[in-house]
Amino acid sequence: MSSYYGESLKLSIFGQSHGAAIGMILDGIPAGLPVDMEHLQIFLNRRAPGQNDWSTPRKEGDIPEILAGILNGYTCGAPIAAAIRNKNTRSGDYDNLKDCPRPGHADYTAQVKYGGYQDAAGGGHFSGRLTAPLCIAGGLCKQWLEARGICIGAHLAAVAGIPDKPFDPLTPQLDQVRPDFPVLSETSGERMRQAIALAREDADSVGGVIECAVTGLPVGLGEPMFGGMESRIASIVYGIPGIKGVEFGAGFQVASMRGSQNNDPFVMDNSAVRTQTNHAGGILGGITNGMPLIFRAAIKPTPSIAAQQQSISLEHGVPQPLQVHGRHDPCIAPRAVPVIEAAAAIAVMDAILSQDTSHRRVL
Amino acid sequence: MSSYYGESLKLSIFGQSHGAAIGMILDGIPAGLPVDMEHLQIFLNRRAPGQNDWSTPRKEGDIPEILAGILNGYTCGAPIAAAIRNKNTRSGDYDNLKDCPRPGHADYTAQVKYGGYQDAAGGGHFSGRLTAPLCIAGGLCKQWLEARGICIGAHLAAVAGIPDKPFDPLTPQLDQVRPDFPVLSETSGERMRQAIALAREDADSVGGVIECAVTGLPVGLGEPMFGGMESRIASIVYGIPGIKGVEFGAGFQVASMRGSQNNDPFVMDNSAVRTQTNHAGGILGGITNGMPLIFRAAIKPTPSIAAQQQSISLEHGVPQPLQVHGRHDPCIAPRAVPVIEAAAAIAVMDAILSQDTSHRRVL
Amino acid sequence: MSSYYGESLKLSIFGQSHGAAIGMILDGIPAGLPVDMEHLQIFLNRRAPGQNDWSTPRKEGDIPEILAGILNGYTCGAPIAAAIRNKNTRSGDYDNLKDCPRPGHADYTAQVKYGGYQDAAGGGHFSGRLTAPLCIAGGLCKQWLEARGICIGAHLAAVAGIPDKPFDPLTPQLDQVRPDFPVLSETSGERMRQAIALAREDADSVGGVIECAVTGLPVGLGEPMFGGMESRIASIVYGIPGIKGVEFGAGFQVASMRGSQNNDPFVMDNSAVRTQTNHAGGILGGITNGMPLIFRAAIKPTPSIAAQQQSISLEHGVPQPLQVHGRHDPCIAPRAVPVIEAAAAIAVMDAILSQDTSHRRVL
Amino acid sequence: MSSYYGESLKLSIFGQSHGAAIGMILDGIPAGLPVDMEHLQIFLNRRAPGQNDWSTPRKEGDIPEILAGILNGYTCGAPIAAAIRNKNTRSGDYDNLKDCPRPGHADYTAQVKYGGYQDAAGGGHFSGRLTAPLCIAGGLCKQWLEARGICIGAHLAAVAGIPDKPFDPLTPQLDQVRPDFPVLSETSGERMRQAIALAREDADSVGGVIECAVTGLPVGLGEPMFGGMESRIASIVYGIPGIKGVEFGAGFQVASMRGSQNNDPFVMDNSAVRTQTNHAGGILGGITNGMPLIFRAAIKPTPSIAAQQQSISLEHGVPQPLQVHGRHDPCIAPRAVPVIEAAAAIAVMDAILSQDTSHRRVL
Repeated sequence: MSSYYGESLKLSIFGQSHGAAIGMILDGIPAGLPVDMEHLQIFLNRRAPGQNDWSTPRKEGDIPEILAGILNGYTCGAPIAAAIRNKNTRSGDYDNLKDCPRPGHADYTAQVKYGGYQDAAGGGHFSGRLTAPLCIAGGLCKQWLEARGICIGAHLAAVAGIPDKPFDPLTPQLDQVRPDFPVLSETSGERMRQAIALAREDADSVGGVIECAVTGLPVGLGEPMFGGMESRIASIVYGIPGIKGVEFGAGFQVASMRGSQNNDPFVMDNSAVRTQTNHAGGILGGITNGMPLIFRAAIKPTPSIAAQQQSISLEHGVPQPLQVHGRHDPCIAPRAVPVIEAAAAIAVMDAILSQDTSHRRVL
Repeated sequence: MSSYYGESLKLSIFGQSHGAAIGMILDGIPAGLPVDMEHLQIFLNRRAPGQNDWSTPRKEGDIPEILAGILNGYTCGAPIAAAIRNKNTRSGDYDNLKDCPRPGHADYTAQVKYGGYQDAAGGGHFSGRLTAPLCIAGGLCKQWLEARGICIGAHLAAVAGIPDKPFDPLTPQLDQVRPDFPVLSETSGERMRQAIALAREDADSVGGVIECAVTGLPVGLGEPMFGGMESRIASIVYGIPGIKGVEFGAGFQVASMRGSQNNDPFVMDNSAVRTQTNHAGGILGGITNGMPLIFRAAIKPTPSIAAQQQSISLEHGVPQPLQVHGRHDPCIAPRAVPVIEAAAAIAVMDAILSQDTSHRRVL
Repeated sequence: MSSYYGESLKLSIFGQSHGAAIGMILDGIPAGLPVDMEHLQIFLNRRAPGQNDWSTPRKEGDIPEILAGILNGYTCGAPIAAAIRNKNTRSGDYDNLKDCPRPGHADYTAQVKYGGYQDAAGGGHFSGRLTAPLCIAGGLCKQWLEARGICIGAHLAAVAGIPDKPFDPLTPQLDQVRPDFPVLSETSGERMRQAIALAREDADSVGGVIECAVTGLPVGLGEPMFGGMESRIASIVYGIPGIKGVEFGAGFQVASMRGSQNNDPFVMDNSAVRTQTNHAGGILGGITNGMPLIFRAAIKPTPSIAAQQQSISLEHGVPQPLQVHGRHDPCIAPRAVPVIEAAAAIAVMDAILSQDTSHRRVL
Repeated sequence: MSSYYGESLKLSIFGQSHGAAIGMILDGIPAGLPVDMEHLQIFLNRRAPGQNDWSTPRKEGDIPEILAGILNGYTCGAPIAAAIRNKNTRSGDYDNLKDCPRPGHADYTAQVKYGGYQDAAGGGHFSGRLTAPLCIAGGLCKQWLEARGICIGAHLAAVAGIPDKPFDPLTPQLDQVRPDFPVLSETSGERMRQAIALAREDADSVGGVIECAVTGLPVGLGEPMFGGMESRIASIVYGIPGIKGVEFGAGFQVASMRGSQNNDPFVMDNSAVRTQTNHAGGILGGITNGMPLIFRAAIKPTPSIAAQQQSISLEHGVPQPLQVHGRHDPCIAPRAVPVIEAAAAIAVMDAILSQDTSHRRVL
């Protein structure tokens, strides 16, 4: 189950940060989807490291090789497989992690779980690098969704406590997310970049919140109870390393609202059913209601910081100070923006493929 | 998939609010668990309606009949099946919901999804009443977990914006949750009850936040990526009607923290590995680290309010004011507390049964 | 996983032979299917015991109570739940089975697997009685399939080595299966009944082969590799107690054929693509080819025989002769005929609901 | 679902016969298994083409590259990924298959299912070549099983109607299968090879039956109903192209036996429980009983034969004679022997990892 997701689509992800390759199999994509590889690469580049001054200097081309499932530019119905070779590996940086686990990382839990056999270099299978194959899968799903008029966009709702302008929950402006740094307000973006730079100077890191919107969804996606859209999206978004909170629509604010305020009144809008507000984030009873689907995810500050930290020696059972070397983003939130979009795309496409089944009526 | 959850445990839930019965099948509970039916009933009573002045006056005994899987007081290895008869049904209250959907409910989405064939009475399969079988399953899992020293408790972290004292994230005081009203601070509880009473007087409702803690967990539960504890717990908790946010450990606050502050330093504590703080909520890389697992869920104000609301006639495509009749809690958060515990118990037990598989080494 | 089946449909079965009730949840049936309960009961009666002189005198009404999922005669989109009360239980007959296991039964394997906690009475969860809920599910699926022009029928291909006339693999005559005793040839049926009566006189039992055909299938059902129709059907058919062989089309005979003989030539038939022969049983590469889908299942002689048998005392580790009391069919094959149809119906409907997903093309 | 298998182990297979690569991800192998790559290659070579005069002259090294999951010779707990490059591709041979489908192949069903977008070359994803990654997965599982004393072996029970000596069902002689040609009796093997050579001379092909035995199994593997060993094994074995029949123990012969004959009497053997005969093939109620698990699978004659066959033009709807070119085995049964072993190994290991869950008792 570990690295699997999906009901009608089946995604499986493999790889370790410093292993031979990372990659994925995506099974269930209908045959006949034209695949725009250039478009996919542009999407992947938004996640790739080494592109700018706020991310890790580790440079990986992150150019996927398609091993199967695409023929003459179209999906052929067979499972799609893709791999990215790991080139720029420096596993020597990570030699002592099995004994002295990094705070905020999976080093200790992996050591206990796998009894020391795990690939500790760079976090191994727990590395954020595994989000690259997630983006390959999500990028393909985005192309399928876009061909049906369904668009997905995300931006940094906050970094280091500095908020961006939120999406309008009734008509989210996906195309107004800035291409260079994913915010709606340039002023907010500038302040965020300063906060990131400051954290780097302090040998520290900062966290953020990503807001994602899906537009163009039909009414009726999702299933009751555990098959609801919130469950589907949360379970894949929580598969992204560092995510510690996921909320939909008004989210945690609903706890302070009254029903008369939180309930979204139904209205007719050019003979379409809509709601006057969108506190529900486009989901009622787990099922899409035709309004934009909106959620936010909180991502923690990069646990790898240059400043000295307190750890222990597992072998000797004594305290041990730790200095983490290597190349790390002082804030992973900007690069996580396309990853959140990818996760949403996979969950939404899977729900579409699955729902056609459940609500289809006889004849 | 809709009403199914689980990997090694398999839970399926059936029923509609005003149908013949609600119930569940829980497959995968190991044979030989002694089942304390009285203990289970006490747990179910915490969720049952009609117990006090802050919940709906609809009274249901909610006494489950065990149909299979338990023999002479022990689980026998066969799937456990249980059902609760619906007695106190008043489906006449719900006649017009197919045409005029209630804001904040699944009436509209179900109408589109099921083409008018859905059971609309009382929300049908989308009703909060379906959390009763969830509590049967969760109550059984809690007994299994308690026999292994794993305890689960929850309280109202907030109602109507009024906060309770939080759990100590290092040593949550599960036994200090008050039995009559699930808070840690009696003063907070009194203020919450007043806010609920006030909402009822105003023909309105209020929301809340529930905090849940799991103690006694071994290190190593959960799988990387989509099998992590956050994904497992969030996907079942979001199956509870009305939940709009789920966060773990420091949750959304991590977005405003620096790495040096959010990272939990490792320390030795009587030759056990622990962390000095618990911002991670007991989960690193999706895997339990031996610290208390802590999460919070936001639940929206009851959408059924007595005050008049704005809706539409689906048939005529025109606005239509709506007055929701029937019996409804002005705040569902107190009754949702055991439901959150049940969901956590199922997710944790499923992770335990599953993890033994993945990290077991040869011979 | 034990008592679960399905990909888009999800079937879970509960119950023990002499427990309170047996039943099932079937999730994923589209809303809006008109359910003919009388038709369903007629189908269930074909499996029910005590109907005639070749089956066990244990009489169970086997009238299912629908607990959820059907409203006003139509499926409502929620999971369908049904239960059958066990009335005519005589658990006293089975007291010593935990120590002295019956040859050919699951008594010994269950004893080891469940450590003595299993419900041994009547075979518990391993009883053939559990095929009643399978027939409820399958009977509902049959109604859905029939509304789409897909028909399923089965007959006794052989009993005690006595063959029936086989189905014509190009145009199986489903309506020529005799209603009283499920054979095509009355002469064969008479000889089979004699063999069964003889076995009963000898305090013994006989086995049989059931042949099943599905007509009206579209081309393209099933998925490559493990999602092929053979895998889907075999995995559910082998869930029926006593099945020891499953083969498709020419089955084991292909091993003695040459390719030039086994390959079914393609021909045009009134501008439809057909094959001249049907050794493939309607399945090529796991995918339906539009020809009748045909398979056979071998069912062993009833293991419960009145004659004395050789067993052991598990407690004392010594040989112990065993006399099985109770009410048993000298041949279960006739009553298994509708069970095979039910299994096929579930597998085929699940494949239909699933395939729409995989081969659907963009726009 | 298509190319996925497993409950605790998760296997996914990708690739097309003439695509860039074929391969697999195997998730759930416990960490710490020492992997003998040489041993694995020897196993793969048994399946590889071009090794001898009875198989296709197409030569593929079939040397897998491990992309992830193995570190320093041990499994590391992360999913294992492996790929084999396709080198010796000649896709020009297959140009006309989309219009004129080969009898006995998936050309027609794939054409309809995927609307012409499928990779038709060499059968694409339906090719027998996809059994190479199945053997990688199965070879790894075999190593894990062997370390626990569980051995799996298979031989040609029959080819072209010529029978081999069967395994002794009580003590199958796995090590007596001949290394050059997988039979127990050299005489039978010689006659089979002659029949294969004769078929080749006739531009034709022959089928066969493979018998497989698993020894050293504990009692208690498998789950009731659909999780039984027969369902688990049949569903993966039917994923192998060309399999049309699967039977366990006495298989289809049970239909002609009486209960007194088919029931395996329990006996004590050096204080171990055994059965005197093994008609059950080691499985009672779907659960292993500690006796050798034995099954047979029928594989059809290679559908690709050099002789001219009858087909049609799909475009023009007229008959069209077809001559299949390319390199094909006149009998695939010998090379399928290790594939059957691989499938059994995966199913058995998955059952072991899963069963520990279900029958584990409290404390």
